[in-house]
Amino acid sequence: MNDFKIALIQTTSDLDLRETESRTVRFIEEAAAKGARVICLQELFQHPYFCREQDPQFFDLAETIPGKTTHRFSEVVKRLEVFLVLPLFEKVNDTVFYNSVVVLNPKGEIVSHYRKMHIPQDPGFEEKFFFSPGDLDWPVFDTPYGKMGVLVCWDQWYPEAARLMALKGAKVIFFPTAIGKLHEESEELAIQQHQAWETVQRGHGVANGCYIAACNRVGTEGNLTFWGQSFVSGPYGSIIARASHDAAEVLVVDLDSSEQEEFRRIWPFFRDRRVDAYGDILKRVIESDD
Amino acid sequence: MNDFKIALIQTTSDLDLRETESRTVRFIEEAAAKGARVICLQELFQHPYFCREQDPQFFDLAETIPGKTTHRFSEVVKRLEVFLVLPLFEKVNDTVFYNSVVVLNPKGEIVSHYRKMHIPQDPGFEEKFFFSPGDLDWPVFDTPYGKMGVLVCWDQWYPEAARLMALKGAKVIFFPTAIGKLHEESEELAIQQHQAWETVQRGHGVANGCYIAACNRVGTEGNLTFWGQSFVSGPYGSIIARASHDAAEVLVVDLDSSEQEEFRRIWPFFRDRRVDAYGDILKRVIESDD
Repeated sequence: MNDFKIALIQTTSDLDLRETESRTVRFIEEAAAKGARVICLQELFQHPYFCREQDPQFFDLAETIPGKTTHRFSEVVKRLEVFLVLPLFEKVNDTVFYNSVVVLNPKGEIVSHYRKMHIPQDPGFEEKFFFSPGDLDWPVFDTPYGKMGVLVCWDQWYPEAARLMALKGAKVIFFPTAIGKLHEESEELAIQQHQAWETVQRGHGVANGCYIAACNRVGTEGNLTFWGQSFVSGPYGSIIARASHDAAEVLVVDLDSSEQEEFRRIWPFFRDRRVDAYGDILKRVIESDD
Repeated sequence: MNDFKIALIQTTSDLDLRETESRTVRFIEEAAAKGARVICLQELFQHPYFCREQDPQFFDLAETIPGKTTHRFSEVVKRLEVFLVLPLFEKVNDTVFYNSVVVLNPKGEIVSHYRKMHIPQDPGFEEKFFFSPGDLDWPVFDTPYGKMGVLVCWDQWYPEAARLMALKGAKVIFFPTAIGKLHEESEELAIQQHQAWETVQRGHGVANGCYIAACNRVGTEGNLTFWGQSFVSGPYGSIIARASHDAAEVLVVDLDSSEQEEFRRIWPFFRDRRVDAYGDILKRVIESDD
């Protein structure tokens, strides 16, 4: 099977969980009707991006995996016969929480569980308050269209993460995300930051000969307006499809794994990796010689 | 010192070594006159890109480091008081050769010696025939404007290489290069490949908060037309300057390390690297769990 369709669901989140979930389900139905077989939701899709503030009340939003939400969405994927990349605020117990993603297969089974490995902490993105760093490494999941991986938001800046997914066989890397502009920041900075965000992920695609599928949210929450512009890029790093900056929408994109295979054969980067000389990557700081 | 100028010298190479060198020296003089303090030449700048064919006669072109060329260019940099990134075909003895770069400081001393770590081998780029893989790891060099590193051509596809340079303190990464279009390949593929080339390097810049300075050659040699389009990108991955696709020229670019510092403070990626979880990067293949 060379051709297959994926979908990204870019939407807002309301304070009303039921409204957010039912809108999301309608979008999943739309994506499935358009032929998408692997569908990705945005980071922490059920809720407003509560990490804008270090407010302990938001721990109430967390739930277990498996749990209520995985059960509800298991029914959805069974009905529609799709894979679903489902981000969740995971509660392990009342002391440990993760920014997680599960993948459901068309039978409704959990086939992958990822906990965000790189946790940001900066004004408006106060995630270290809520989440422990992930401890499930870099899982990939099998589909009839090849292996795929999921990374989350801040992970997108780390070439190591994408590389590890590709080394484990991922042909598509999904990035559920919640990123945008703080209102006090300049337009100029926002444009630069958005370009950097797109560029670094497209670069991961080139370095690994992968499809990249970044799913961001839209709308304004407090002093933060999300960029939207969810996108899919190909092995050459070109943008195949990009959503609007402000509308809730479904982006359905046709991928062709034969194009990817051609890329990887013309440019066999993996053949020449200097695994004998990369050891210092495992250090946080390399002391200067002088 | 926040501001400093670098220059990339994008030119052709003639069969006549003396003509190529004297043209290159004129360009170095022009760059210095325009205020550039660190000047970079293209990969194997002295010669036509002889790796198009596996012809053993070309081993005659190699020379030792230090040697004739480092001596000649030592005089040039002392006269002009500049740093020079000087790519050379290095002969160690009659059995071992490298695709190398030395950096000369304004006193004419060799302050860095790099041997290309990733060696390509594909039609028209038959480098594994000529060069052993580098064995001097990832050196950086000190300047009054901060540390800088040099990687060469095929290295540009490897995020590990750029990361290691940045971990060693490089604020600018130079990429002397010889890349272009084989005449038998389609225009469409050439455009995609060129974009991929730019994108992946700009992505390294974002991931590491570095300036990227890629210096390519121009002109047609046999069935290969080089892309030119040497460029410098900033920490946000935006192109600051790009040379033409076909003209020999000097690209002088003003860099501002305070912009870079701001980037690295707003987005402190290095803080959150999961050095505990990157170990599998040192493997060529990760066996599947299933």
